Amino acid sequence: MTDLHVDGQRLWRTLHELAEIGATDAGGVARVALTDADKAGRDQFVEWVVEIGCAVHLDRMGNLFARREGADPERDPVVIGSHLDSQPTGGKFDGAYGVMVGLEILRVLDDAGHRTNAPIEVVSWTNEEGARFPPAMLGSGVFGGEFSLEEGLGAVTTDGTKLGDELVRIGYSGTEPCGGRPVGYYLEPHIEQGPILEANGKPVGVVTGVQGIRWYDVSIKGFESHAGTTPMDRRSDAMVSAANLISATDDIAKARVDGRSTVGVITSMPGSRNTVAGSVNLTVDLRHPDPDELSRMHDELIETASAIDPSASVEQIWYSPPVVFNASVVEAIRKSAAESGFEPIDIVSGAGHDAVYVNRVAPAGMLFIPCEEGLSHNEAESIVIEHSTAGAEVTLQAVLRLAEPA
Amino acid sequence: MTDLHVDGQRLWRTLHELAEIGATDAGGVARVALTDADKAGRDQFVEWVVEIGCAVHLDRMGNLFARREGADPERDPVVIGSHLDSQPTGGKFDGAYGVMVGLEILRVLDDAGHRTNAPIEVVSWTNEEGARFPPAMLGSGVFGGEFSLEEGLGAVTTDGTKLGDELVRIGYSGTEPCGGRPVGYYLEPHIEQGPILEANGKPVGVVTGVQGIRWYDVSIKGFESHAGTTPMDRRSDAMVSAANLISATDDIAKARVDGRSTVGVITSMPGSRNTVAGSVNLTVDLRHPDPDELSRMHDELIETASAIDPSASVEQIWYSPPVVFNASVVEAIRKSAAESGFEPIDIVSGAGHDAVYVNRVAPAGMLFIPCEEGLSHNEAESIVIEHSTAGAEVTLQAVLRLAEPA
Repeated sequence: MTDLHVDGQRLWRTLHELAEIGATDAGGVARVALTDADKAGRDQFVEWVVEIGCAVHLDRMGNLFARREGADPERDPVVIGSHLDSQPTGGKFDGAYGVMVGLEILRVLDDAGHRTNAPIEVVSWTNEEGARFPPAMLGSGVFGGEFSLEEGLGAVTTDGTKLGDELVRIGYSGTEPCGGRPVGYYLEPHIEQGPILEANGKPVGVVTGVQGIRWYDVSIKGFESHAGTTPMDRRSDAMVSAANLISATDDIAKARVDGRSTVGVITSMPGSRNTVAGSVNLTVDLRHPDPDELSRMHDELIETASAIDPSASVEQIWYSPPVVFNASVVEAIRKSAAESGFEPIDIVSGAGHDAVYVNRVAPAGMLFIPCEEGLSHNEAESIVIEHSTAGAEVTLQAVLRLAEPA
Repeated sequence: MTDLHVDGQRLWRTLHELAEIGATDAGGVARVALTDADKAGRDQFVEWVVEIGCAVHLDRMGNLFARREGADPERDPVVIGSHLDSQPTGGKFDGAYGVMVGLEILRVLDDAGHRTNAPIEVVSWTNEEGARFPPAMLGSGVFGGEFSLEEGLGAVTTDGTKLGDELVRIGYSGTEPCGGRPVGYYLEPHIEQGPILEANGKPVGVVTGVQGIRWYDVSIKGFESHAGTTPMDRRSDAMVSAANLISATDDIAKARVDGRSTVGVITSMPGSRNTVAGSVNLTVDLRHPDPDELSRMHDELIETASAIDPSASVEQIWYSPPVVFNASVVEAIRKSAAESGFEPIDIVSGAGHDAVYVNRVAPAGMLFIPCEEGLSHNEAESIVIEHSTAGAEVTLQAVLRLAEPA
């Protein structure tokens, strides 16, 4: 551990000052990507980093980098970051926490006049939420090669507005290429957006990776018939079959410590209260950190659906393989957390983050702090200053560790 | 059994001649209440009954009566009937079968010059389907006192057109009161619209009554949370609770020979594939011929829902008590069927019919004939001539039995 420490009060004030930009009456934030509020948030970030002598770089996707030079011109930077955009009725900390932790680290270094060996950069990725311009994680996705620049700039709102045009409109269309910018290590501090740290009473979680995700569209067939005239033993009720499949899908995940399964959307046809459903469509979301285990969950879903309804259609529409974060970054975070006395636990992220795409082109890792009741994407999203400070302190120590001479 | 018998071929021809009015390309009928096609169907019926010397009476709801006088001026008529209107993509036999059987009986009596003791009437009730002017069974409903005349005439289409105005437009707004017209006995022959007779290989079913129906709006609460970050043991998933309730509701009916339960409509909120459902709304339709048993099913539904989700809301929005048809009419149909050699079975109607409302003001009963695969409210609705003839023959004999001197 170094003599350098974050100023938890300053970070807390900064987080709340930022949250005034796009503040909602219900105590949340509406700083949706490439709106005027997003521009104001970016302007504020730029003002803060310029104040402490950082250079600002902007790429063609509007990803925004604040750079503090290091002692060794040969070293690639250690990059800290997340995103400044929010959900339409979002919270104050989702994304903003990671960028503001990065800012706090720049301020600590500036205050101390400490020159790290590697340069330090803080990044805010464009359109992480994807609320206005689906899909999510678009800025980091282009940076990491998941999407082409054309796909990124061509993303449209429901009313046809293009992301690229909005970037120009708010003055954040950069000239530097998106992707290829050197990243020595990438660290993303983030609120957990889940209940695990809180339930375990831990202020810091070391994120070892991200769950794999498989999405399905399922269609169950029955035979449409009259609710009054059709005896129970002569029915083929798609609704009852769907109910059985929902229960079974729940069991598939519950049979595994780290499994998740969710049926979030369901529709029945013809959708009449006195007609036995002729068909039911539903979605299934399966997750697991281990690709083999996720594959077995997939097989069980297919088998179960087929056993319930031989004519069931189970179409996998998306597969996001599990991500395992870089061992050096994970270890730096784990050691820094332990040395800071936080007894961290390892945790697998259930949600996607910019670090997933950055991990494709650079050694990446994340740390989580708890949020109250795991609530996020909600104006009531809340964290406490002790956890905010702990996450920042661990990030600072991990950054210093990674930025020292090799 | 009398010497009088129906002419099955003539009835079959008449059914198909009527089905040309409003015929659809797919082989069905679109003779929706108070459309020009309904007027044409009524005109055809009037022409046929006038040809054989019947008087035509029309009440203020447009219910249409063809009367053949009896020998005893003190007797109330034996009335046979059903409805000539159809679903928008309906079949050729739903409703039309009952009215054409009545016509065939009038023709048999006319051919033979047979004067029954009681008068004989054939009725076509207005707007049985309720497809254009909800609710269903409106003409017989006003006649039986379920609805006021104002409610009947004031029924509106989705575009605001009034039933009363359409009655005037097509020339079938009568001057006689709706209700109060004497009915000695009422017999309604109808297709089953279910699979029971076909499954049992029976051409005729003696309908002893109509199931009671209870309709519910159910709301299950959960806690909206992230599909990726929320471990299975920390979820309150309204979709899984709803699935359990759907299975349990199915079991409530399956535990009873004559029980029925149906969940036909379901919606989940927020309706996102990667969000655990915070609430699910669904409909429940419970039916049983025995009011006490139906009441026990009700109690079990409430208990089950409460056990699955203590905050579940189960609101009963409609109760239609079971109907038990008049013993004299049921017995006349049963005896006539047996004497005609058809080994009838007793059957409880799962659907509502005009006879339900007529039963409130006069001794009423029904007989069913099979329809192919129980399919109705569908252009593919189909019956065979043997069953058509059998149902008409049984109705004729039952009518003669009931119309004889007391």
